[in-house]
Amino acid sequence: MKKILGTSLLLLSITIFGQTKQDSIQFAEISKEILNNGKSYTELKDLTKNIGHRLSGSEAYEKSVKWAEQKLREAGADKVWLQEVMIPVWVRGKESLQIKTQDGKWRNLKMLSLGNSEGTGGKDISGEIIMVKSLEEYEKLPNEKVKDKIVFFNYPFSQTFIETFKGYGDAAKYRVNAASLAAKKGGKFAIIRSLSSAFDDVPHTGAMRYENDNKIPAVAIGNTTADELEVLLKSQKITAKLNSNCGMKGEKLSHSVIGEITGKKDKNVIVVGGHLDSWDVGEGAHDDGAGIVQSIEVLRTFKKMGIPNNHTIRVVCFANEENGLKGGIQYGKTAKDNNEKHLFAIESDAGGFAPRGVSLEMDDEKRKQIKSWSNLFFPYGVYHFEGTYSGADISPLHAMGVPTAELVPDSQRYFDIHHTVEDTFDKVNRRELLLGAVAMTQLIYMIDKNW
Amino acid sequence: MKKILGTSLLLLSITIFGQTKQDSIQFAEISKEILNNGKSYTELKDLTKNIGHRLSGSEAYEKSVKWAEQKLREAGADKVWLQEVMIPVWVRGKESLQIKTQDGKWRNLKMLSLGNSEGTGGKDISGEIIMVKSLEEYEKLPNEKVKDKIVFFNYPFSQTFIETFKGYGDAAKYRVNAASLAAKKGGKFAIIRSLSSAFDDVPHTGAMRYENDNKIPAVAIGNTTADELEVLLKSQKITAKLNSNCGMKGEKLSHSVIGEITGKKDKNVIVVGGHLDSWDVGEGAHDDGAGIVQSIEVLRTFKKMGIPNNHTIRVVCFANEENGLKGGIQYGKTAKDNNEKHLFAIESDAGGFAPRGVSLEMDDEKRKQIKSWSNLFFPYGVYHFEGTYSGADISPLHAMGVPTAELVPDSQRYFDIHHTVEDTFDKVNRRELLLGAVAMTQLIYMIDKNW
Repeated sequence: MKKILGTSLLLLSITIFGQTKQDSIQFAEISKEILNNGKSYTELKDLTKNIGHRLSGSEAYEKSVKWAEQKLREAGADKVWLQEVMIPVWVRGKESLQIKTQDGKWRNLKMLSLGNSEGTGGKDISGEIIMVKSLEEYEKLPNEKVKDKIVFFNYPFSQTFIETFKGYGDAAKYRVNAASLAAKKGGKFAIIRSLSSAFDDVPHTGAMRYENDNKIPAVAIGNTTADELEVLLKSQKITAKLNSNCGMKGEKLSHSVIGEITGKKDKNVIVVGGHLDSWDVGEGAHDDGAGIVQSIEVLRTFKKMGIPNNHTIRVVCFANEENGLKGGIQYGKTAKDNNEKHLFAIESDAGGFAPRGVSLEMDDEKRKQIKSWSNLFFPYGVYHFEGTYSGADISPLHAMGVPTAELVPDSQRYFDIHHTVEDTFDKVNRRELLLGAVAMTQLIYMIDKNW
Repeated sequence: MKKILGTSLLLLSITIFGQTKQDSIQFAEISKEILNNGKSYTELKDLTKNIGHRLSGSEAYEKSVKWAEQKLREAGADKVWLQEVMIPVWVRGKESLQIKTQDGKWRNLKMLSLGNSEGTGGKDISGEIIMVKSLEEYEKLPNEKVKDKIVFFNYPFSQTFIETFKGYGDAAKYRVNAASLAAKKGGKFAIIRSLSSAFDDVPHTGAMRYENDNKIPAVAIGNTTADELEVLLKSQKITAKLNSNCGMKGEKLSHSVIGEITGKKDKNVIVVGGHLDSWDVGEGAHDDGAGIVQSIEVLRTFKKMGIPNNHTIRVVCFANEENGLKGGIQYGKTAKDNNEKHLFAIESDAGGFAPRGVSLEMDDEKRKQIKSWSNLFFPYGVYHFEGTYSGADISPLHAMGVPTAELVPDSQRYFDIHHTVEDTFDKVNRRELLLGAVAMTQLIYMIDKNW
């Protein structure tokens, strides 16, 4: 990987002359325009402060649909429309988790039910907590040790990975599978340690999944609470009691929001997008308000600067990424049904932090070509064109053969606040957010021109 | 620059084999140790919350000297000592800036006197404000237009530069020279728009300098206030009134704090450092508590992991960087007097943000050698080995011929909070801070082994 990088940079420094000068001037103008006049930051403030979190199916989500429609029009889209999507409706409702220590006292724990989890139907469910530190440890437990117990998966988020997405990937199975794992051996409900890189007590929600119809509840607790519980469990038996009302409430018609500027040469489509929905806590600022306002910024910048676009540049504000991916799936299906040729799609769904690179999921030739532009991006702090992932919402497009990519911002702070009450506007830095929009606009300018 | 980079990476990918494997394992172990067990973050919390800001000459600074001494011992230094330094004492005292608009009402402005500025001696000084947007505009003003006026230099921090240090460098002359410029044409005092990348109303202090004995006061206001003042001045005459007690209060004996682990092969010295003093507002968290705790982390890591150090590795917590550089000057002088050979020095004084590179100020051969290690650093997000600056405190060492360097963290957030009440511990992210210590430890490991 490293050798390839060295070689490609060398190749680049040869092949780049001729076409570079004009492009590097255009790169600088894009950057200057966005850093000085970009609206993403104020638009994000508007979205997060005036609408706030916006889970699929909520009234707030429907408000954000209208909001995105309006912002795309203001940005200068030639065409704006809503794409119908049937989305699952999950509702949290009231919830509480308590533990009883050996002194007989009940104590409330800060917690969040995991997204898509069923609750207790408003009744108390209680049992003795049994803790495991890993899946391996859990697999070894005989069923009778788990039966009627509360299973506490206390797997810590690894600090060792440099890219925190790897730590997240490493721990994600606990969130996704805890309930089904516990149910399989007769557990009453599952508690997980949050998928959190922070040293605090903030619980992180996020999607879980049931393997079958034995749907027991799953909840997350913060790291500090998890540590304290671990210490307590060393010396005593602890009873946990859950009361929650969450659960799936059927389906509902909702919308993704789409806006585009029409291609001057053809109607082939370049997609830039993020997801409009968020979890039902915090403000969905980094996840993924950032991706939405950055994508709109790309369109606005093309329009305002009058950059000639050969192909159609389309912003997609996807519905329901967090707990169903129905927006992305529907978008792919519609594209196929309408026989629309998609040249390229990029998503921003890793937070509004300073960009470091672009992850590329495409054939080697296209990947090589994009890498050959590296030197143009280098002055903007964007140097890393590796990775093999490109965003959940555009994975259906990728499955149809479309070359896809994802903006890769610095990942250090993301999993401190991801899916929590702390994912708020004040955690977003203006320049970092704008630089992400700069990098995506620059990349789309190159692809529009060369593909 | 770009071509050189490409070529050197290619060279690297050839020359690196053989020596790399062991080094890349050592890099990973250093990273793992610091990300999991590093103490910089909790030590920074201690320094910022229990001592707080610590301007040279203050009681808090003297407390921080004892604190650093203690932390260096706890980190495992073989030897810890204080280096005497005569430092200038500047005291802020009470201060206020008011403006009177045409309705006759006085209104308080948020402000900070610039560091090293003389005040009004507790008396009111007032006059009509005259605003200029740039030095060029000011130079054209005839003296009689400035005489007895208050000169408001309203030069905005440029958002266009990708590295915010360039925007800072571009605007710094206004802070440094505003008072002398205004005095030269008979102005009563100077107001500057803060050197701030933020869109808020937080005033930024920082060092100014007098060219001669005509020492009129200089103060900074926040960006919002500056914008509002600009609008007001378009339609009316405005009187400003300053009352301040700041000024230089002579000199005082103080100390830099030094700790080292002795070289196993020789007593040649590798320095890693930051500055222990801060401005007298906020908590001096990013500037430069971060550099101090990261430097101590380097020493702790060598000691704890038992990395064999051929040369002496010395942590220097420099006194008085902010308003005199006396610690750095004294350190250089003492090194010369004692005939100590310094192999290398690196400073961390650009904030505790995620590292992106190392700025190198040294001859081409050494620079090329360090660049040839780039691939080892790449997995840690450290990819940029350009730049020609290496930190104020070690500039006297550089002047003596020592190869010097500075850690280059992401710069996007720094000038939002630099020299303000907002430079507080909560602005520092644990992983970002620790990764800076990782990069410095890795670099010193390579230099210790190869030089």
